[in-house]
Amino acid sequence: MSIHRDIKLDFERRQRMGLDEAILASGKSVAHLEAILDQATTADARFLLTRLAREQFEALPGKYRARIDYDELSRTAYFGEPEPAKAETRTAVIAAGTSDVNVVREISRTLAWYGEPSLEVTDVGLAGIWRLLERLEEIRHMPVVIVVAGMDAALPTVVGGLVPGVVIGCPTSVGYGVATGGNAALNAMLSSCASGLLVTNIDNGFGAACAALRVLRSLR
Amino acid sequence: MSIHRDIKLDFERRQRMGLDEAILASGKSVAHLEAILDQATTADARFLLTRLAREQFEALPGKYRARIDYDELSRTAYFGEPEPAKAETRTAVIAAGTSDVNVVREISRTLAWYGEPSLEVTDVGLAGIWRLLERLEEIRHMPVVIVVAGMDAALPTVVGGLVPGVVIGCPTSVGYGVATGGNAALNAMLSSCASGLLVTNIDNGFGAACAALRVLRSLR
Amino acid sequence: MSIHRDIKLDFERRQRMGLDEAILASGKSVAHLEAILDQATTADARFLLTRLAREQFEALPGKYRARIDYDELSRTAYFGEPEPAKAETRTAVIAAGTSDVNVVREISRTLAWYGEPSLEVTDVGLAGIWRLLERLEEIRHMPVVIVVAGMDAALPTVVGGLVPGVVIGCPTSVGYGVATGGNAALNAMLSSCASGLLVTNIDNGFGAACAALRVLRSLR
Amino acid sequence: MSIHRDIKLDFERRQRMGLDEAILASGKSVAHLEAILDQATTADARFLLTRLAREQFEALPGKYRARIDYDELSRTAYFGEPEPAKAETRTAVIAAGTSDVNVVREISRTLAWYGEPSLEVTDVGLAGIWRLLERLEEIRHMPVVIVVAGMDAALPTVVGGLVPGVVIGCPTSVGYGVATGGNAALNAMLSSCASGLLVTNIDNGFGAACAALRVLRSLR
Amino acid sequence: MSIHRDIKLDFERRQRMGLDEAILASGKSVAHLEAILDQATTADARFLLTRLAREQFEALPGKYRARIDYDELSRTAYFGEPEPAKAETRTAVIAAGTSDVNVVREISRTLAWYGEPSLEVTDVGLAGIWRLLERLEEIRHMPVVIVVAGMDAALPTVVGGLVPGVVIGCPTSVGYGVATGGNAALNAMLSSCASGLLVTNIDNGFGAACAALRVLRSLR
Amino acid sequence: MSIHRDIKLDFERRQRMGLDEAILASGKSVAHLEAILDQATTADARFLLTRLAREQFEALPGKYRARIDYDELSRTAYFGEPEPAKAETRTAVIAAGTSDVNVVREISRTLAWYGEPSLEVTDVGLAGIWRLLERLEEIRHMPVVIVVAGMDAALPTVVGGLVPGVVIGCPTSVGYGVATGGNAALNAMLSSCASGLLVTNIDNGFGAACAALRVLRSLR
Amino acid sequence: MSIHRDIKLDFERRQRMGLDEAILASGKSVAHLEAILDQATTADARFLLTRLAREQFEALPGKYRARIDYDELSRTAYFGEPEPAKAETRTAVIAAGTSDVNVVREISRTLAWYGEPSLEVTDVGLAGIWRLLERLEEIRHMPVVIVVAGMDAALPTVVGGLVPGVVIGCPTSVGYGVATGGNAALNAMLSSCASGLLVTNIDNGFGAACAALRVLRSLR
Amino acid sequence: MSIHRDIKLDFERRQRMGLDEAILASGKSVAHLEAILDQATTADARFLLTRLAREQFEALPGKYRARIDYDELSRTAYFGEPEPAKAETRTAVIAAGTSDVNVVREISRTLAWYGEPSLEVTDVGLAGIWRLLERLEEIRHMPVVIVVAGMDAALPTVVGGLVPGVVIGCPTSVGYGVATGGNAALNAMLSSCASGLLVTNIDNGFGAACAALRVLRSLR
Repeated sequence: MSIHRDIKLDFERRQRMGLDEAILASGKSVAHLEAILDQATTADARFLLTRLAREQFEALPGKYRARIDYDELSRTAYFGEPEPAKAETRTAVIAAGTSDVNVVREISRTLAWYGEPSLEVTDVGLAGIWRLLERLEEIRHMPVVIVVAGMDAALPTVVGGLVPGVVIGCPTSVGYGVATGGNAALNAMLSSCASGLLVTNIDNGFGAACAALRVLRSLR
Repeated sequence: MSIHRDIKLDFERRQRMGLDEAILASGKSVAHLEAILDQATTADARFLLTRLAREQFEALPGKYRARIDYDELSRTAYFGEPEPAKAETRTAVIAAGTSDVNVVREISRTLAWYGEPSLEVTDVGLAGIWRLLERLEEIRHMPVVIVVAGMDAALPTVVGGLVPGVVIGCPTSVGYGVATGGNAALNAMLSSCASGLLVTNIDNGFGAACAALRVLRSLR
Repeated sequence: MSIHRDIKLDFERRQRMGLDEAILASGKSVAHLEAILDQATTADARFLLTRLAREQFEALPGKYRARIDYDELSRTAYFGEPEPAKAETRTAVIAAGTSDVNVVREISRTLAWYGEPSLEVTDVGLAGIWRLLERLEEIRHMPVVIVVAGMDAALPTVVGGLVPGVVIGCPTSVGYGVATGGNAALNAMLSSCASGLLVTNIDNGFGAACAALRVLRSLR
Repeated sequence: MSIHRDIKLDFERRQRMGLDEAILASGKSVAHLEAILDQATTADARFLLTRLAREQFEALPGKYRARIDYDELSRTAYFGEPEPAKAETRTAVIAAGTSDVNVVREISRTLAWYGEPSLEVTDVGLAGIWRLLERLEEIRHMPVVIVVAGMDAALPTVVGGLVPGVVIGCPTSVGYGVATGGNAALNAMLSSCASGLLVTNIDNGFGAACAALRVLRSLR
Repeated sequence: MSIHRDIKLDFERRQRMGLDEAILASGKSVAHLEAILDQATTADARFLLTRLAREQFEALPGKYRARIDYDELSRTAYFGEPEPAKAETRTAVIAAGTSDVNVVREISRTLAWYGEPSLEVTDVGLAGIWRLLERLEEIRHMPVVIVVAGMDAALPTVVGGLVPGVVIGCPTSVGYGVATGGNAALNAMLSSCASGLLVTNIDNGFGAACAALRVLRSLR
Repeated sequence: MSIHRDIKLDFERRQRMGLDEAILASGKSVAHLEAILDQATTADARFLLTRLAREQFEALPGKYRARIDYDELSRTAYFGEPEPAKAETRTAVIAAGTSDVNVVREISRTLAWYGEPSLEVTDVGLAGIWRLLERLEEIRHMPVVIVVAGMDAALPTVVGGLVPGVVIGCPTSVGYGVATGGNAALNAMLSSCASGLLVTNIDNGFGAACAALRVLRSLR
Repeated sequence: MSIHRDIKLDFERRQRMGLDEAILASGKSVAHLEAILDQATTADARFLLTRLAREQFEALPGKYRARIDYDELSRTAYFGEPEPAKAETRTAVIAAGTSDVNVVREISRTLAWYGEPSLEVTDVGLAGIWRLLERLEEIRHMPVVIVVAGMDAALPTVVGGLVPGVVIGCPTSVGYGVATGGNAALNAMLSSCASGLLVTNIDNGFGAACAALRVLRSLR
Repeated sequence: MSIHRDIKLDFERRQRMGLDEAILASGKSVAHLEAILDQATTADARFLLTRLAREQFEALPGKYRARIDYDELSRTAYFGEPEPAKAETRTAVIAAGTSDVNVVREISRTLAWYGEPSLEVTDVGLAGIWRLLERLEEIRHMPVVIVVAGMDAALPTVVGGLVPGVVIGCPTSVGYGVATGGNAALNAMLSSCASGLLVTNIDNGFGAACAALRVLRSLR
């Protein structure tokens, strides 16, 4: 049976609810990915791919690799051109340390695909809270602040008490022992005493960016 | 030791980040609640109380009960006057069934405290999906849609795929067996395949409303 | 000690309760698998093997590989001929997306081994509910509908509310964060508000197919 | 706000997918239940109520209590007349011991509401397997066998290996220590080595009966 | 059988490892408690009782109640005189809010039993981080800082990064949803990115105080 | 620092409580294993090694490999001679299927090291209960019956109701979905309704054998 | 429907596998208990009842109360005479502290029902290990030692390393925080480094006693 | 984007709260590690690296490898010179067996980096409690005792009852079945009946050492 039979892309999603369908590459075989790119090419469609491992990328045919802007750190790929960047930066993406940079970059690359520039602020872990306070002025006036954190995920609570905008917590799976897999970070965010903190699934940088886009579109 | 010594209200929170401090009544003794109301009275402050059980409310001194607008279903209490209601309804609060109405009402009462009217839509469970589709036009143009759901919490995924605005999932603890306590609903929402769905803690209607307020303030 | 000593196949199971013994290959050494095929050959028996990895299949002796119809996607193998296909398709196997196609195929290949044709409907995820509604007429009159879903597993609830037949939910381990391993999907299905939805273990496509066969045999 | 506003019964469900809406009483206030019965009376509708505690039943107005056939053990209530009983018994409901009788009765009462007689077999625990074997002839030819079990839930596996019909496992929350709440029973059923065993949520006798009805309707 | 037979107090524990045996009252019958107080009286011993509910206290014979200094908030009781208070305060006990005051008081009362005064700082929740910073000078030079926190338990991480002394995190069971029972707080503390933070069991104020005493004795 | 410094074998354990120290090889480096074998050689001691992977065995020096009787299936190794086999077989080791044979063999090899012959009965899964009943006479008179089972672990309950001797349940990690890792099997055994069933940790064949030895020594 | 219909006692269990059926009273209504006692009276049978709450006992008819030897601490009841006590004490039942005395007593009362005297040793908690060492000579020569422990359950490991007989760990639900419900104690016992320690479900004193009886019968 | 942009080391941490920032190498790419070492070199800083795998170490440029004192067992690396060793040994680090030696060494290497010598005592498992008692005199007078334990983690309870100093439990992930990942050990330590036992995350030897340093600095 042809693998193309199993695939049915949703090219009208943006018309319907404002976001393109993106392709989650993890768990898909190279044959599946090729079939998807074939369909997109036929439909003259652009695409964002997420969680595309280097091995998957390198196994794609050269004709497709050439049309893809691939970033290994975030495992994101642009098939086609991103939207032109807007002038104003309206989203901050902040993290406690370098271990979470891959998720931070997945968020900023997803936002950039939709033309939204973002401010990345990494290494503001609470073990040295002055690092966060030094950057506060830059962050405070953003309509959306995404906080990426693993381990004890204390950062979103502090940020949520300091900024008035929409605050989105994105827990990561970084950690060991009870922090393994990110549940400690997720539960800390869900239990936060900062009012109105919202949360995504663990490591779901793509989802955090889409949520930001839902907010930002309302502002236009 | 006086109980007043342990309490330090945060009357400047609105100036700092736009939301008043609210009082979570559950787990507080009546003596604690009285001390808080004493302080608020002295400071001439208004307050929203959440999770105030009828027994707690009725145990308060008459002078305070008289100044409180109490709603048993949502366990919310207004100490002082809410803000005047805005003209435009910008938030829909929807639920699958009557079991979740208490959380729906906590959300709408919190929004109303800040002058935000909301549209309550209950009993649109997916076991009869036509009920949701009939109401879709009303919901679709809201900048914020809050979906309250227990059990399998399938509703936010369907809504998230149909509306372009900010979608906030608020899981509830309604259910039995594997749904006991709301974790099945929470995890279903966090795993949703609808892009950009954001989630609060279980039964955290107050938090969902605060998040909505963070979004709505950006629109002004 | 000979490995043959440890194996005792159940060639009379079909006489007793209507289904042949199938061999779960995962966790078995190649020596074990060979011993099983030796016994089956001696007894002139036919067999379905499930969860047979490509590496296991390729390590079998050529004489056995030649007699096996192996499908890598579903990891199923027919040792001997399947039953002749019946004329009528009485089972639909539906899934939200291509990530679950391997389990869908395990189900349809197991049904086909017993001569039951099935209708595969993939990529009807709820993020675009119109895709499901377009296919509803095909599905609605089937006596058995098997819904394969990972992540938030909202699809079985919607299907269960739309079709009158037996609905079997088969959760998959596809997902990350709180969806890792498939427990979120499993719990969502068990908590479904669609009346009479039945559930199998995670990734248990074989079990879902056997359950369908138990139903279909009653209809004859 | 009137409580009637929050309620919207689904009187057309049977036309659509063959089962009436039933009312889950647990977690509903008496005011909610009254409003539901008012609506049903107005619509001249019949209803099955499940998980109706004695205290809830007794708090209903006399005019409604008089029209209700209430069974305390199963916490089920018939509002209106059940369908006339069919001549043939096509479902066995079996359990290991008296601790699970309340769930067994919920199943048989739900089936009886739809006119399906059932055979209750209790006290066939595996600690004395001869008790099950003595009853096997009665059970073996039923198209549907529902096995209710708590604790280690070994019974469905044994039954599943002995009967050819549809076997539905309904785990119960009976037990202590690691069996508390019924998860041990649920997981044992989901992991059963009996092919094609299907499972419901813990204590979901109503769901097990509805699933049986989905099967039995196919046979007509 | 006499209940006295089952009890064997450890009057030499202080000689051996520096702390008296304390009596955990929860789960003990009044008869058990009386038997313990009888033995202590005979041996002319002093005792600290923890988790003594008001009902238990009030059910004791008058002769014992008269000799007990009981504090309902912390559920601690002194049977006999505490050690004379030392001049220097060497321990700070801090908490995010009034919900944790009962555990804070259990700690300070346990320390006071051993003659160690402590500084209680409550209501320094991170949602308003300036409250903590205002109190920092008082806390910073203490050799031991105990941080009591429920919910997301972000406070110990911030404190651990600001003070050089021994920092002990004592999680509490305050919270709902994923914070129920205190596991989210416990796991956040164990995962803290503040180096050298140590943790006790949930609600174990007595244990946190004992650990402080182990440190403080080294300083003498 | 020499690795020998970290190792201190317990050569007097048999004198003290009747069982030799055994070496758990998993997690130990080859250097550690060599140091242990050096010490044992110097002390002229015999040893049982458990969970010794083939890679570990093959990395040992030839002089030690030559003195070791290694069994790959059970990952056990005899360093030195086992005790002479007793005449009477007093232990049955039974399992539902071939997937658990490795644990069965670990048990029988451990018993054989102490001179206790055992009867292995595999492939008596409950999906075909007649297989167990056929073997019952052999098993019933053994003073010790060890039942090895993964998945739903229903077998020990049935056996426990049929035999009067000591019944030890040894759960295995065989399984997928909710059975992953063996917790479903463990919990089913702990919840068993067969009176007096005792349980070991998951995959702890060595422990089950040691427990059997504790019983058998009492009989001498 | 008569409640007697649901009950089928197993009066031949002792003939079959050596232990009488015992009645687990928890979760049974008084009507159920009466029906059981009626049947037993008719059959002239003796019975052990476990987990019989004082309220249940007191609600029984006077004619049955008069024939029952009830012990509130252990919640056990003898309906009829226990077997005559044997001369030799062959079982020690030991516990760390008075909180576990109820389970200790359930064990000794169950053993006494079968004529087996036992030695109770309570209050030998490891926080003062000399208390255990003082009693070691009494314990060491028993063929069966049952160790009852909650919290961290370290006692069975120490005992298992000191005595050569059969050691049975019975975890209890005593504890708070992570020890709530007894899972910490259970898991510590299952993970014990003492070879051949066997474990029962949490609070399953009856099961521990039955296991001891299985061992002791082999010795006769 | 340059990787250096994401990194911001905290060279003033020692001035602020007495401990240098250490680098957790696990999860960092070699490029990240190089960038960190570049920055440290520029700032003329010394560093401790933890959880540095041999593969990571060997992939570093030769110029950096030459300046690093690497220990494979503990996965720690000194970049620069450790502080001169103090004369007095004030910390004991003890473990039940050789499986935990890697964590023991991580602790002693971290302490040595700060000039604190420590006494390692391994292989004092409780299955032979005399091994611990033999070493007690050496351990008893240390102001800090760190107990490293996996599996059932009974050792810290026994030690906590025998020594008056600060006792820190460091659970390890060594174990299988219910002990997998170290949660059984962690929970046993948190539930310990030894008063004032403090606990770190699983495998967090670095954290245990930092906590010891917080205590030891108070003594100066």
